[in-house]
Amino acid sequence: MKILLINPNTTEAMTRDIEAQARRYAGPGSEVEAISPRWGPASIEGHLEDELAAVATLEAVAERSGDYDAVVIACYGDPGLYAAREVSPVPVVGIAEASMLMACMVAHRFSVVTVLPRIRPLIEDVVARYGMTGRCASVRATSLAVLDIENDPDAAEREITAEAARAIADDGAEAICLGCAGMGPLDRRVQETLGVPVIDGVAAAVKLLEALHGYGLSTSRVAAFKQPEPKELTGEADVLRAFRAVSASQRLSRV
Amino acid sequence: MKILLINPNTTEAMTRDIEAQARRYAGPGSEVEAISPRWGPASIEGHLEDELAAVATLEAVAERSGDYDAVVIACYGDPGLYAAREVSPVPVVGIAEASMLMACMVAHRFSVVTVLPRIRPLIEDVVARYGMTGRCASVRATSLAVLDIENDPDAAEREITAEAARAIADDGAEAICLGCAGMGPLDRRVQETLGVPVIDGVAAAVKLLEALHGYGLSTSRVAAFKQPEPKELTGEADVLRAFRAVSASQRLSRV
Amino acid sequence: MKILLINPNTTEAMTRDIEAQARRYAGPGSEVEAISPRWGPASIEGHLEDELAAVATLEAVAERSGDYDAVVIACYGDPGLYAAREVSPVPVVGIAEASMLMACMVAHRFSVVTVLPRIRPLIEDVVARYGMTGRCASVRATSLAVLDIENDPDAAEREITAEAARAIADDGAEAICLGCAGMGPLDRRVQETLGVPVIDGVAAAVKLLEALHGYGLSTSRVAAFKQPEPKELTGEADVLRAFRAVSASQRLSRV
Amino acid sequence: MKILLINPNTTEAMTRDIEAQARRYAGPGSEVEAISPRWGPASIEGHLEDELAAVATLEAVAERSGDYDAVVIACYGDPGLYAAREVSPVPVVGIAEASMLMACMVAHRFSVVTVLPRIRPLIEDVVARYGMTGRCASVRATSLAVLDIENDPDAAEREITAEAARAIADDGAEAICLGCAGMGPLDRRVQETLGVPVIDGVAAAVKLLEALHGYGLSTSRVAAFKQPEPKELTGEADVLRAFRAVSASQRLSRV
Amino acid sequence: MKILLINPNTTEAMTRDIEAQARRYAGPGSEVEAISPRWGPASIEGHLEDELAAVATLEAVAERSGDYDAVVIACYGDPGLYAAREVSPVPVVGIAEASMLMACMVAHRFSVVTVLPRIRPLIEDVVARYGMTGRCASVRATSLAVLDIENDPDAAEREITAEAARAIADDGAEAICLGCAGMGPLDRRVQETLGVPVIDGVAAAVKLLEALHGYGLSTSRVAAFKQPEPKELTGEADVLRAFRAVSASQRLSRV
Amino acid sequence: MKILLINPNTTEAMTRDIEAQARRYAGPGSEVEAISPRWGPASIEGHLEDELAAVATLEAVAERSGDYDAVVIACYGDPGLYAAREVSPVPVVGIAEASMLMACMVAHRFSVVTVLPRIRPLIEDVVARYGMTGRCASVRATSLAVLDIENDPDAAEREITAEAARAIADDGAEAICLGCAGMGPLDRRVQETLGVPVIDGVAAAVKLLEALHGYGLSTSRVAAFKQPEPKELTGEADVLRAFRAVSASQRLSRV
Repeated sequence: MKILLINPNTTEAMTRDIEAQARRYAGPGSEVEAISPRWGPASIEGHLEDELAAVATLEAVAERSGDYDAVVIACYGDPGLYAAREVSPVPVVGIAEASMLMACMVAHRFSVVTVLPRIRPLIEDVVARYGMTGRCASVRATSLAVLDIENDPDAAEREITAEAARAIADDGAEAICLGCAGMGPLDRRVQETLGVPVIDGVAAAVKLLEALHGYGLSTSRVAAFKQPEPKELTGEADVLRAFRAVSASQRLSRV
Repeated sequence: MKILLINPNTTEAMTRDIEAQARRYAGPGSEVEAISPRWGPASIEGHLEDELAAVATLEAVAERSGDYDAVVIACYGDPGLYAAREVSPVPVVGIAEASMLMACMVAHRFSVVTVLPRIRPLIEDVVARYGMTGRCASVRATSLAVLDIENDPDAAEREITAEAARAIADDGAEAICLGCAGMGPLDRRVQETLGVPVIDGVAAAVKLLEALHGYGLSTSRVAAFKQPEPKELTGEADVLRAFRAVSASQRLSRV
Repeated sequence: MKILLINPNTTEAMTRDIEAQARRYAGPGSEVEAISPRWGPASIEGHLEDELAAVATLEAVAERSGDYDAVVIACYGDPGLYAAREVSPVPVVGIAEASMLMACMVAHRFSVVTVLPRIRPLIEDVVARYGMTGRCASVRATSLAVLDIENDPDAAEREITAEAARAIADDGAEAICLGCAGMGPLDRRVQETLGVPVIDGVAAAVKLLEALHGYGLSTSRVAAFKQPEPKELTGEADVLRAFRAVSASQRLSRV
Repeated sequence: MKILLINPNTTEAMTRDIEAQARRYAGPGSEVEAISPRWGPASIEGHLEDELAAVATLEAVAERSGDYDAVVIACYGDPGLYAAREVSPVPVVGIAEASMLMACMVAHRFSVVTVLPRIRPLIEDVVARYGMTGRCASVRATSLAVLDIENDPDAAEREITAEAARAIADDGAEAICLGCAGMGPLDRRVQETLGVPVIDGVAAAVKLLEALHGYGLSTSRVAAFKQPEPKELTGEADVLRAFRAVSASQRLSRV
Repeated sequence: MKILLINPNTTEAMTRDIEAQARRYAGPGSEVEAISPRWGPASIEGHLEDELAAVATLEAVAERSGDYDAVVIACYGDPGLYAAREVSPVPVVGIAEASMLMACMVAHRFSVVTVLPRIRPLIEDVVARYGMTGRCASVRATSLAVLDIENDPDAAEREITAEAARAIADDGAEAICLGCAGMGPLDRRVQETLGVPVIDGVAAAVKLLEALHGYGLSTSRVAAFKQPEPKELTGEADVLRAFRAVSASQRLSRV
Repeated sequence: MKILLINPNTTEAMTRDIEAQARRYAGPGSEVEAISPRWGPASIEGHLEDELAAVATLEAVAERSGDYDAVVIACYGDPGLYAAREVSPVPVVGIAEASMLMACMVAHRFSVVTVLPRIRPLIEDVVARYGMTGRCASVRATSLAVLDIENDPDAAEREITAEAARAIADDGAEAICLGCAGMGPLDRRVQETLGVPVIDGVAAAVKLLEALHGYGLSTSRVAAFKQPEPKELTGEADVLRAFRAVSASQRLSRV
């Protein structure tokens, strides 16, 4: 199967690292291609950046998901996930969602260890939206900005490990979800130190999409994720181009 | 005070109607100006449209909120609300939030009556995000598209009233939140028929912003709604222009 | 509009301070008159005192609310609030409710900082009754009795600020609700020290009632807050006089 | 043991019926005396009446609980329960609480069948306050006023049974809590018709107090139910007499 | 009444101690006989042991409950409780359930103090299954294995008391449920030190079963606890013998 | 990878059908072997049968899981799942859990359609235990016994489809989880009729275990699923043999 991995953070080096991480775990029949949207924030550490990245990601989904069997959105706020399900003809999974679903199979409760404190409320809302509040022991922040991880992985690993250890000792966490796509490549090293499952959402999403694909399931279209109706899009913003194309193709496909 | 009312639906006639509705209820010292974003969907009836509208709305917030004392986001999914709080120097309220907070003061439980069934899961998520699930008797859909309300208000009123009556009789609702900005101008007529409070989020938001302003409260900046950091924005999408300006002004304002 | 502010604590000096606080924030068209019930506990720090104060407050509501456009119940347990909604022909808001609804518009999560530890369970129940448990980061007690605040506001301010700072640092609070009417006048001083919104329920209630009034909403009468039926009241307790009068006037108004 | 059963409804015939019901189930070593407060509403069907009855009940608790080993509050809103725990030297149980705790031992989910629809929100709040929302399949109202049950028990039985049957068939109820003290004497007849446990809170409370007494447990005094502090009670309302006496005796008992 | 107390832990000395504890609190008309199942783990400190003990306990229930008026399952995970309700012709109560229901009548929130940390998630699930999460301040573990309590009760008492004191000071607990049948005999000593209600589930269960029995209530049979259908049991495992007998007797009793 | 699929229902024909279903979806590198325990109920439709099956299943896990890379427990109550995680050296997934996790990726809310009404409370508890209550639109029963599905799949399909259609129309379900292993082979036929994802837990579990395996995750051992301690097992029940062996091997492996 062909998996399109979209890193909503537009930092090319990070995208390449995530791609390598995804390919490390991809099954024999899976090809992963990682891209960043054509535009958007270099890194995502708040609601504004999450919203911008959502639309940039959706543009990529609209343009390219038709050539793949599945899509991963690789940023821990899962920006644009539900809209992507509407737009994409193939299944879409977010890495926050994927890491938590995976954690549910190996732990009674998990914690998320993420970047800066300002992102914690956003991630707590994501946890709640998926109904995972009761399974989540805590969301713990660090002092790391997203791009700090790229720049000094060893320091990042030390800080993530320390915070995760506190989640295990104080909050009752039994597994750790790495709360940023950039942390993914550290999964095994942190896991070896901690001795509990450490889950990167990118790897988790690839494996879960293989699972969905293998079972032949795809997004339900009866309510929340119904395909958008063809609709007038006002204005000349270049961001609308992709969505106009979607709308047009839908109109045709209904004939 | 000066209130900027942004109708994320880019249908000018609807924006004018919402403006009239807002001005109907605005206090003596309040001026309301209603705009739609420069681009975006003519109406919002799903996640994709909500996401596009969020960014278009945020662009308007970034460009213009500095000239006002408060901002209303006038679409019942409250698109971009939390990001708008980060971006705007002044308080921002969404109409879903506003209608529910207002309902809490006059009813034990309220129901939301909204447009097409496909939007119901999105609105249920909004209700849950604000912690209002226990106060919300039900979210009920109708067969109305957003623009149907504009086009045939009498038919819309009949259908809204019928569905609201079912919410009162069957679900225990004691007040009705009108789940679409376009329904707002019908508030009094529906209320007279039903005999329970019927709340338009636009009117509610104007009054609540006057309340916030009168008390002198503004958005907390310590965590969820911290101002975005100046950040590299990749790409040439015209949508980024407004946000680049924000970023630049922030950098300056820190000197 | 005319607002009746009832301080269920029967300490006159406190009532005057609360009145001053309410008038400080009242809009140009609003007049606030503050009273205490004719009888009841000097201060409210437990369930018994809350129950006594509720009935004394309801007596005042029954006797006087007809001469006003709205009523505030100014004690953080919101004693008698739901019954007051049944009795009063005009909207009634409690200060706990008001402070929390206001906090929801400026913060992702708030904490309540209140008086003695024994009152914490009562306030946690109030938070839960309004469905605010998910929005409330913590309810934190101090060593302050209600009347200590009156007596030594500087010491009170120091202790409230210290406890609030812990709520922000340890619990993730982004705004502080002052959990006692007597703390209200300290709102701005605590806010300046902490740098997050600090919300006095008295000020919040005045502004929210102005909002309700401006929109023209009043209490729903279909279920929870239906007007009491005329009913036989047994016994000669003087407390019943006011309620007998209510009952009689209702009987007449039905003819 | 000696049990004081307080019927907050001041209808003597009802109090006698409840006393007979309580004695029917009281154990060999238990004596039950039922009283109504000296004053208060003839029946309780809303928040105002619940608040009045709470204070009248608390007066009785303050005056008389010292002569008994335990107290039952026999009205399904459990008026004044938490305050009664503060005031009474002996354990206090409400009939709503008692019926639900009992139901938890014989059913996976129970429903409450109660009087008029207007009381349903109040009872739903009671269910929630005790944490029983997840165990409660539904709260169902009838067209019965409290005193209708006294006046025509056969008609009451038919209506209660019909509504309970719907709770079993449609809501998944496996036991029925009778949501009004006046319904108690019908417990066995309804149970025989329905074939599921039907629980009267009065009988349940008597048995649970015998259980508490037999184990030697009494109310925790460290937080929520701490004894009221001696406190100045303003005014000449006769309702204060009993509480002044409590306050005085506490002051003495501290010497 | 005759109460069968089954200690799922097959340690005879412990069973005798529990029996003594139960008899200490049993009412004048109650006889308690305590047994352990014929087989199973010496002590229960995890899910596997809980599952084994459940079936061994159910075997005892199937064989012997017909000779008693009620059954207690005396292990804090309440192993096999819901199945025992299906099998037993008489009411069955588990000690976790019993201690929590009892705590609800004397405390606003309780904590459970239990044995080893590994059992905490299991007990948190039990708390949640009964809907008690909102009433439970915390589940706190100690370093004690089940049989350590038997072997050195003084050391156990010290550790339980210390952990319970932390629950009261830090978590807001107002009563303590002893989270292991073996801790029961320490109830009064711990209570004297702490000054809050300390509840042993064994004593609580005996008293609650006397309450159920006195009221004449028994398990609802309409859904969750419907009697098992006669059913083919495959295989020659000796554990099946008791259940085959149940099945046979049911078949007969239907003729 | 080698997957051991244990059908806790000891009906050989059913086990063969489940095996065929699992193999239908197993990936190229996966081998599935399906077994039933050596003993236990022919079908599982209540708590007693669930408990018996749990231990019989655990016996099989103890004896055989060491020869496989992963284990599926194929009965919709997930009998013995948490204990199996303690015992098994390799990951274990239950089909209820698997179907719900899978549903979360393709639907906003799902319903479970299961066998007889008596099993509904058990399944609702399973849904709650996994934190899925907010994602689950409803659990709907049919009139089908487990073995009816085997015996007349066409009739079963009709009834399942009808009930699922009601879940979609009335409860807001967007995907259907088949609430019995025996229903699995009907997944595609029901899905074609309904037009929403229809998920068999057996297929889902196989795919999710391949995902876990591909990522290299295994059960966390720090708390809930810690390996059982070597422990004295009292009695001569043959069921203990397998567990004695586990205990012995653990003791050795610690040397």
